[in-house]
Amino acid sequence: MKIYADNAATTRLDIDAFEAMKPYFLDDFANPSSAYNFSKNVKQAIEEARRTVALCINAQPEQIIFTSGGTESNNHAIKCFTAQNQHCCVVTSSIEHHSVLYACENSGFEQLIMPVDKYGVVTNEELKIALDKCCLKTSPFSILVSIMTANNEIGTIQNIKALSETVHSYGAIFHTDAVQAVGHIPIDVQTLGVDMLSASAHKFNGPKGIGFLYSKNGLLQIFHHGGGQELGMRAGTENVPAIVGMAVALKKNVEEIKHNTEHLLHLTDAFFTILKNSDVDFILNGHPTERLPGNLNISFKGKSGEGLMHMLDLKGICISTGSACDSINQQVSHVIKAINVPVEYREGTVRVTFGKENSEKDAMDVANTLIKMIKI
Amino acid sequence: MKIYADNAATTRLDIDAFEAMKPYFLDDFANPSSAYNFSKNVKQAIEEARRTVALCINAQPEQIIFTSGGTESNNHAIKCFTAQNQHCCVVTSSIEHHSVLYACENSGFEQLIMPVDKYGVVTNEELKIALDKCCLKTSPFSILVSIMTANNEIGTIQNIKALSETVHSYGAIFHTDAVQAVGHIPIDVQTLGVDMLSASAHKFNGPKGIGFLYSKNGLLQIFHHGGGQELGMRAGTENVPAIVGMAVALKKNVEEIKHNTEHLLHLTDAFFTILKNSDVDFILNGHPTERLPGNLNISFKGKSGEGLMHMLDLKGICISTGSACDSINQQVSHVIKAINVPVEYREGTVRVTFGKENSEKDAMDVANTLIKMIKI
Repeated sequence: MKIYADNAATTRLDIDAFEAMKPYFLDDFANPSSAYNFSKNVKQAIEEARRTVALCINAQPEQIIFTSGGTESNNHAIKCFTAQNQHCCVVTSSIEHHSVLYACENSGFEQLIMPVDKYGVVTNEELKIALDKCCLKTSPFSILVSIMTANNEIGTIQNIKALSETVHSYGAIFHTDAVQAVGHIPIDVQTLGVDMLSASAHKFNGPKGIGFLYSKNGLLQIFHHGGGQELGMRAGTENVPAIVGMAVALKKNVEEIKHNTEHLLHLTDAFFTILKNSDVDFILNGHPTERLPGNLNISFKGKSGEGLMHMLDLKGICISTGSACDSINQQVSHVIKAINVPVEYREGTVRVTFGKENSEKDAMDVANTLIKMIKI
Repeated sequence: MKIYADNAATTRLDIDAFEAMKPYFLDDFANPSSAYNFSKNVKQAIEEARRTVALCINAQPEQIIFTSGGTESNNHAIKCFTAQNQHCCVVTSSIEHHSVLYACENSGFEQLIMPVDKYGVVTNEELKIALDKCCLKTSPFSILVSIMTANNEIGTIQNIKALSETVHSYGAIFHTDAVQAVGHIPIDVQTLGVDMLSASAHKFNGPKGIGFLYSKNGLLQIFHHGGGQELGMRAGTENVPAIVGMAVALKKNVEEIKHNTEHLLHLTDAFFTILKNSDVDFILNGHPTERLPGNLNISFKGKSGEGLMHMLDLKGICISTGSACDSINQQVSHVIKAINVPVEYREGTVRVTFGKENSEKDAMDVANTLIKMIKI
């Protein structure tokens, strides 16, 4: 492989994160729940990681529990809320990740799916319509709204602060799937005013198999029953190396967020300039400015995104057509349909997502190779 | 630390397993669900691991899904079965791990908890009484029996083959929590006749944060909703390094099971001989012969197990008083109560669990130090 430009699917583990994980595999391998001194280091490492993660999103450590990833965090938040609230009403958007959509669908309660505008934005007006509908059927305290902070396909960033204010003005609860946002754009749970937030380490150069769930005190119930780990909310022996690695990766990404953002905007500019200066017919999907810095979701008229992806693959370039979770299902994604990409462009959709390790040359090479393949 | 003798709590990661994991952190880091060539190695590594794991327990690869550990596997098996079967009846034993007991308790269905005999054995007679009771209330197909293969505290191994035959003679479904057994005693799901089986890698020298769930075709439903990973049964980006490490550790432990068993029986013999030749008053808990090879659960008359554990800790020896998950809750465990350890011995319970890395000298040192501390 020459160029990896699918950083929304997953990222390379940060080397500092890996180094921090290493001692907990072979040396400090104690079960953190054990009572002897050997487990002390391990316990401390977990709690230090919890403080670090909390600090990175301006939360309190006791508001963070470690999970096996974003999907578990989303399932935990949604299924536990619905299980404990009779006559629930769940409000989501049409561009949510399947772990949110399917968790809501399988909660057994009424699900209201809000449309988005052409940029993939959930408007406050649509949110109010949905909340009004729910309030006719149930108490506001039994309403859960789940809207993602940034979309995994088109990169659109929602106005979470405004949305959460609306949700709270009704007395409802607000969860956000911030899997694509954490470590990439500044996240402050106090400013955003969210009640619950999901994140996944492998999206921000942390290890796979670990994530976290932020929730306001007293809101969360137990998802995995068993031992008393994770403040009693998520049983199971802690994945110590992964927890430590996640915290290191997150801290580093958050500290470098300004630098990384500038770098990524520079790369996307370079890419976009080449595309604009060519004669290929394309549209950029998602919001023109309120989008993840490394994301370029593009639809080429009359082309096959699938075909382009495979042609670039043969040249050693990794891009995707959308969510990795859906790559087996080679149809136009629910996100592309939801933002009404014109029919003649839909099939020609590719997602290019640069990461902090990509260079300007990478961006230019991807753009030039794409143009070359389109003209074949 | 000088001696680690708490291998039932967790084990040191096998060095070969760690070496096998390493490439998947920094080099082959692709999302296995991606469609390009870079993810091919990663996909193959997961499917090879699945074949290895399946082979180790005589299952088919498509009967194995990877989870975040034993607790998730138990929750998955129990909660999904109960969620899909109206008017369920769940039968367990009084010495199950809390991840089984609490998952059953929180399923919202009737739970029958069978007593065990003084060795911690679930008898076929008690099982029949429980099944008869359930059959009065529901259809046999809505009955789930969950009995652990080997107990985590006292090491007693159940006659799973006989129990599963009884369960199936009623038409009910049988799950076993084999977290302490897999990699330590031979496990053949065909011979045992179980319908579902849970395992956790860090109990057999694999990494933390990974486990698996075996289930007969068509039996399992989705626990974590989202992407189509793990045959559609468990969504979430796969924890590739951990999956690979688990398979290597399991294969190695299974291949060495005869050698390890002989070694561990030798260690427990050495330990036990020293104790028997001393004048301390103790009883061995659990079955005298049908027990995990490295396990010694012992109650000392009129002593404090908690105190002994801490005194040994000061000497650099790690043992426990029972399950690590319960170490915060410093009361006599539900297992020790269930097997009716005489009151004057209960508080003096310690669990010594040797692993393949322990030496005969370790065993003798632990025994001699215990005796010394008891006599203080």
